[in-house]
Amino acid sequence: MSERIFNFNAGPAAIPQSVLEEVRDDLLNYKGEGLSVMEMSHRSKSFDAIIKSAEALMKEVMEIPDGYKVVFFQGGATLQFAAVPMNLLTDGKFADYVNSGSWSKKAISEAKKLGKTVNVIASSEDDNFTHIPKGYKVTPGAEYLHITSNNTIFGTQYQEFPATGNVPLIADMSSDINCRKIDVSKFGLIYAGAQKNLGPSGTTIVIIREDLMKRSPENIPSMCSYNIIGGKDSLYNTPPTFGIYIIKLILEWIKGQGGLGKLEEINRKKAKMLYDSIDNSDFYRGTAKEDSRSIMNVTFRLPSEELEQKFVAEALQKGMLGLKGHRSVGGIRASIYNAVPMKAIETLVGFMADFKKQNG
Amino acid sequence: MSERIFNFNAGPAAIPQSVLEEVRDDLLNYKGEGLSVMEMSHRSKSFDAIIKSAEALMKEVMEIPDGYKVVFFQGGATLQFAAVPMNLLTDGKFADYVNSGSWSKKAISEAKKLGKTVNVIASSEDDNFTHIPKGYKVTPGAEYLHITSNNTIFGTQYQEFPATGNVPLIADMSSDINCRKIDVSKFGLIYAGAQKNLGPSGTTIVIIREDLMKRSPENIPSMCSYNIIGGKDSLYNTPPTFGIYIIKLILEWIKGQGGLGKLEEINRKKAKMLYDSIDNSDFYRGTAKEDSRSIMNVTFRLPSEELEQKFVAEALQKGMLGLKGHRSVGGIRASIYNAVPMKAIETLVGFMADFKKQNG
Repeated sequence: MSERIFNFNAGPAAIPQSVLEEVRDDLLNYKGEGLSVMEMSHRSKSFDAIIKSAEALMKEVMEIPDGYKVVFFQGGATLQFAAVPMNLLTDGKFADYVNSGSWSKKAISEAKKLGKTVNVIASSEDDNFTHIPKGYKVTPGAEYLHITSNNTIFGTQYQEFPATGNVPLIADMSSDINCRKIDVSKFGLIYAGAQKNLGPSGTTIVIIREDLMKRSPENIPSMCSYNIIGGKDSLYNTPPTFGIYIIKLILEWIKGQGGLGKLEEINRKKAKMLYDSIDNSDFYRGTAKEDSRSIMNVTFRLPSEELEQKFVAEALQKGMLGLKGHRSVGGIRASIYNAVPMKAIETLVGFMADFKKQNG
Repeated sequence: MSERIFNFNAGPAAIPQSVLEEVRDDLLNYKGEGLSVMEMSHRSKSFDAIIKSAEALMKEVMEIPDGYKVVFFQGGATLQFAAVPMNLLTDGKFADYVNSGSWSKKAISEAKKLGKTVNVIASSEDDNFTHIPKGYKVTPGAEYLHITSNNTIFGTQYQEFPATGNVPLIADMSSDINCRKIDVSKFGLIYAGAQKNLGPSGTTIVIIREDLMKRSPENIPSMCSYNIIGGKDSLYNTPPTFGIYIIKLILEWIKGQGGLGKLEEINRKKAKMLYDSIDNSDFYRGTAKEDSRSIMNVTFRLPSEELEQKFVAEALQKGMLGLKGHRSVGGIRASIYNAVPMKAIETLVGFMADFKKQNG
């Protein structure tokens, strides 16, 4: 194939083509400095400018208020499943968790495994995770409330966030960070693996309210400590320099697109096109409840598994990759992150109409 | 600068130019598949071929015997400083450590911080870490012996490894992995951050004897567990896919160079050229004891700090980057990893002669 494919992968996922072009053009000789970004010392002036710029852009794009720190970790959301309770859940106390899907369950089981007391205050598991739980109240005395803002596998997403009063709200936003405007001041901590909307896998963004950083106990691994990694401005040890560089470029791209307000508008339009073509048919059937639908991962079924396999195979032949649903639930999933262009959605919607005509 | 610089960075460090060229050429469209490696699902056939190939090449290049597993982690050597005792040092028991420099000290203090009992059986700290300790004996009952095979900051390197009998030998080889042939069967576990001889920062290689994998307790973070990450063939969660891809290319490059035997020959020649030009002068003074000299990091002093600053600045003007010694020890350090070409050493040696003539 000489052209770029339409990439509906759930993550690692599509990266804006202009970003990849810039990475390619500077790969052997960054800005005339005679070396690749991946060959730079993490203590050099050149890399310092890159990481500082990535942090500043993150604050600007997300309108992060004063009193928060942007920190780069390694280990994906999975390390954060452990880091959150290790840093913020004192032994003998408890934290509230909402169970809205597979990743929530992993966050809960990781905390429990470390001997922490987890209080699951709401769950949609009985409903096969087809909706986001609502109408619960945070337990007085909870050290925090943990939620998963978007459930990649089930195609559900918080439309509004719970009010938690003085209890810090902690969100795993791995699959929908920077897809829309949010009010960061409502959160104590936000974390996200980069590999959906922010860059390549291997870097995790943590946005943490500075007073929470200081809660980290001494006796946990340094690489899990908000106080140590945050206190050293993500340079306690060698960070994933190349990933941070690409995150910077993607944040510049977001600004160039008009910022999160404009991207949200585009993302809602992209999602609506897909949901409309599902709803206006008796052939396709959306799996998430309407009030919980994600604008990042659109999940649906066809009349049979056989047709679903055929759909995925024919779509691939037509240049659309990654439409197979997660192995745990089956069906079809179109992940339409920021970098998936409108043209990809138009092509998919056109294909869905054709496929229905031929197989309906 | 339109040309590539001579890169003597201590890490992240030089990457073979042919590898960077291949990365560049395939950046937007890997092997005609229509997407970048960093946009691929970590569960796709294409990425599976890449990671399997990286593992197989690592085994081939290092001649790793059966019964060992190659595993990719995140978090650098610093996470391994914690992971090693968390997985392998039972509470109430103890492990032996050799203190040969700053990174050994960090490994020791990380283990202690986690409440583990550390027994430092040998140290060169009183000698400013200018040599590798020798002549010690492993303590009977130790759960393992931990060493740092090469000390980036002090320019020292193990010339032969201690015999440990039944006690597993564990080595942090971050700064000299794949610089020479070693007998892997002498080790229980080897770990190395990729950013010196193997690839970009953000990926850590762990080579572990399979019986040790099973020792991991249940109550540690999954991202630190040899049994979990190893048991899932490095795919428990999303690994740093792009870094693993570059590691694969570098291992192919190593094979293309003639393997570790040939590379060791070249590395010894490169190091000898530098040490000779230090020893054959009363202007330059090597800091590591001769029997402990590293073939990866060559450290030396000039008659004054003022001259050292001038040396670093003039070298940079002549296209040689990264010669400043680590901030904790000062002086000059030339890191001459696998990817630093002979031409770079020749240029540096020539410059050293000129600089001495003009300033001696």
